[in-house]
Amino acid sequence: MKLLVKNIGTIVGIQPPGRLRVCGPEMGQLETLDDAWLLADEGHITAFGPMTECPPGEDARIVDAEGGMLFPSFCDSHTHIVYAGSREQEFLDKINGLSYEEIARRGGGILNSADRLHETSEEELYHQAMERVREITRMGTGAIEIKSGYGLSTQDELKMLRVIGRIRQTIPLTVRATFLGAHTVARDYIGRQAEYVDLVCNEMLPAVAREGLADFVDVFCDEGFFTVEETAQIIKAGHEYGLRAKIHANELAVSGGVEVGVAHGALSVDHLERIGAAQIETLHGTTTMPTLLPGAAFFLGMIYPPARAMIDAGLGIALASDYNPGSSPSGNMRTVVSMASICMKMTPAEALNAATLNSAYAMGISAEHGSITQGKAANFFLTAPMPSVTYFIYAYQTPLIRRIFVGGEELPI
Amino acid sequence: MKLLVKNIGTIVGIQPPGRLRVCGPEMGQLETLDDAWLLADEGHITAFGPMTECPPGEDARIVDAEGGMLFPSFCDSHTHIVYAGSREQEFLDKINGLSYEEIARRGGGILNSADRLHETSEEELYHQAMERVREITRMGTGAIEIKSGYGLSTQDELKMLRVIGRIRQTIPLTVRATFLGAHTVARDYIGRQAEYVDLVCNEMLPAVAREGLADFVDVFCDEGFFTVEETAQIIKAGHEYGLRAKIHANELAVSGGVEVGVAHGALSVDHLERIGAAQIETLHGTTTMPTLLPGAAFFLGMIYPPARAMIDAGLGIALASDYNPGSSPSGNMRTVVSMASICMKMTPAEALNAATLNSAYAMGISAEHGSITQGKAANFFLTAPMPSVTYFIYAYQTPLIRRIFVGGEELPI
Repeated sequence: MKLLVKNIGTIVGIQPPGRLRVCGPEMGQLETLDDAWLLADEGHITAFGPMTECPPGEDARIVDAEGGMLFPSFCDSHTHIVYAGSREQEFLDKINGLSYEEIARRGGGILNSADRLHETSEEELYHQAMERVREITRMGTGAIEIKSGYGLSTQDELKMLRVIGRIRQTIPLTVRATFLGAHTVARDYIGRQAEYVDLVCNEMLPAVAREGLADFVDVFCDEGFFTVEETAQIIKAGHEYGLRAKIHANELAVSGGVEVGVAHGALSVDHLERIGAAQIETLHGTTTMPTLLPGAAFFLGMIYPPARAMIDAGLGIALASDYNPGSSPSGNMRTVVSMASICMKMTPAEALNAATLNSAYAMGISAEHGSITQGKAANFFLTAPMPSVTYFIYAYQTPLIRRIFVGGEELPI
Repeated sequence: MKLLVKNIGTIVGIQPPGRLRVCGPEMGQLETLDDAWLLADEGHITAFGPMTECPPGEDARIVDAEGGMLFPSFCDSHTHIVYAGSREQEFLDKINGLSYEEIARRGGGILNSADRLHETSEEELYHQAMERVREITRMGTGAIEIKSGYGLSTQDELKMLRVIGRIRQTIPLTVRATFLGAHTVARDYIGRQAEYVDLVCNEMLPAVAREGLADFVDVFCDEGFFTVEETAQIIKAGHEYGLRAKIHANELAVSGGVEVGVAHGALSVDHLERIGAAQIETLHGTTTMPTLLPGAAFFLGMIYPPARAMIDAGLGIALASDYNPGSSPSGNMRTVVSMASICMKMTPAEALNAATLNSAYAMGISAEHGSITQGKAANFFLTAPMPSVTYFIYAYQTPLIRRIFVGGEELPI
């Protein structure tokens, strides 16, 4: 069935075919078309143009945008939305000034999420994650990366990845799965980190690959987590199974995560709260997409990454939500975009490109997603009429998203 | 018509009759009742109790809360929601590093809001403001203070206050109006600030009082705005007309605004990003409610007020949204509460008390609003079932509010 959207106030985020990401000054360019129509067929954008040349659309379902804007759906290239339960007690404990050890004892941290996941059935885990998927879908996200990493044993990592696989089969959104066995050292292996890394490389990875459950491999390369050498070992093991790396880097310290990621052709290095001129130089001219997670910086009260310096140095940037129960309990990509403008001084154009085309690139799907382009998936949302694109970022808590389309089909909001 | 709400998972925010505010350690106490019912009649709460003793409610409309929580509606004691247009261009100009002068030249700042308001009809102003009122109503706010201050001439200040009066007559929410002629010096009076203060005291205030349009008087007492002496002059003039003061203080500098407010018995002193031990001591034991506006600090990238130090010193705190087009384009009180916990380390109990009972106090309505108390207005909202009260603050962008009641009547959401 064809879909014809008429009376669009402004189409936002038009890109030419073949542009897979934007870097440096290009990030500030957000092509738009006022007073427009858009046609989709078989789930893809087939054409768009000015209302003066609107096709009749006799054989199409017709949607009236009523003067609202049309944005490409958000692409969220870094999430951990498969988890059991929530960790608001840890949030409260932190406010009350408890130590890290005391918080862990009371049920906080990755290891406790792993304990809870271990006790939760695959079915229940799926249902809890689907609740979050429905939530972020209604917020305008059309493609999502989901990581494992609360399993920390072969069996439980497989359980998580199977849940991600089931989500992928159930929903119209595009899903990419990342194996993050090296999220932290499992409780049973504390003090035997090298053995745990061997387990990740020699048991988990082969098992994950055997079932074809992951698209990428990830490592938390940071102070107190995995070293540069261990990260390199795991990335190389991933390569043997055809998995490209996406690396957690430089959240807690200048960890070497950026350098090891770039050296091994990682698709993205994510977090980057602790990044300096040397790391920016390292990233320059590479195929690795620096990915910033302002929701985590906000929720943890960390310093924000130096987005402006990175763009001014010519880098591209992707934005993602980091939706997870400990450090970022929100998957609202519009809020992430507003935080990027409000807290990191990215222009609205830069922030929107970062949350669409560049975040699609950071999960390897930007040939199909992340912009309004002929041939790309018909993933977009319509807003209320607004005075400008900037208004969407500025009025950051006003409900403005009216209708959601994924693969050319309208979804409930 | 009676209203009986059954199967409430938890009633949150119960207070004994007669408690008009909470200070210091009391702020951390949030009384709750699990598995409960609540009865309202003629717009007021008449009783509540455990489901084991639920009345039959034969003569009542019955609402099933389905295990969700019941919270008292938010009270927003500091807003500027009557304005013409929006100021997202100024937001963009700031990101682009423009100077204050350049931004003002391009249409930013209070004076430009005043120009736009001058050109806008009372009817149009009303319709724009009502759009925002509907927005914040759906977000759980049940009582609101609205300031003038974009008029800056007798005629336009009256126009704003008449719009506030019309809103008050139209909606079921409780509305309090504040005359803020001294928001900044009007364009025509630049360089003649004393004359403008005389205009505020001797022309605007009498005219406002003659029409009975204001409940309070406010002054922006800060560096570059009004001095302590001018503030005292305006407060005293307000007293002659029976208007108690609410003061904008210590946003930009240690302005003396707290001291002059307390000395003249102000009901609240608001902002307080620049407050030290001396001002905290000044506030101690007074009837003045310090009111914090974290949404403005967030949006402008300012330092957050020292909420923890204030509570630990025994003060009460109110929270408000500061909804306005320049420095806080959001009226979402739930987000304000979450920011208070995330960014200022107020506990969820403290933040909720601050946004309900204490913010009701800060607009002089806490005998009728701000808690679940027999005899108070039946203003509350129901949420989805949640694992804890903290979850509501922690999952800060998850839509959890399900149904809204004001004066015992259900409103659309």
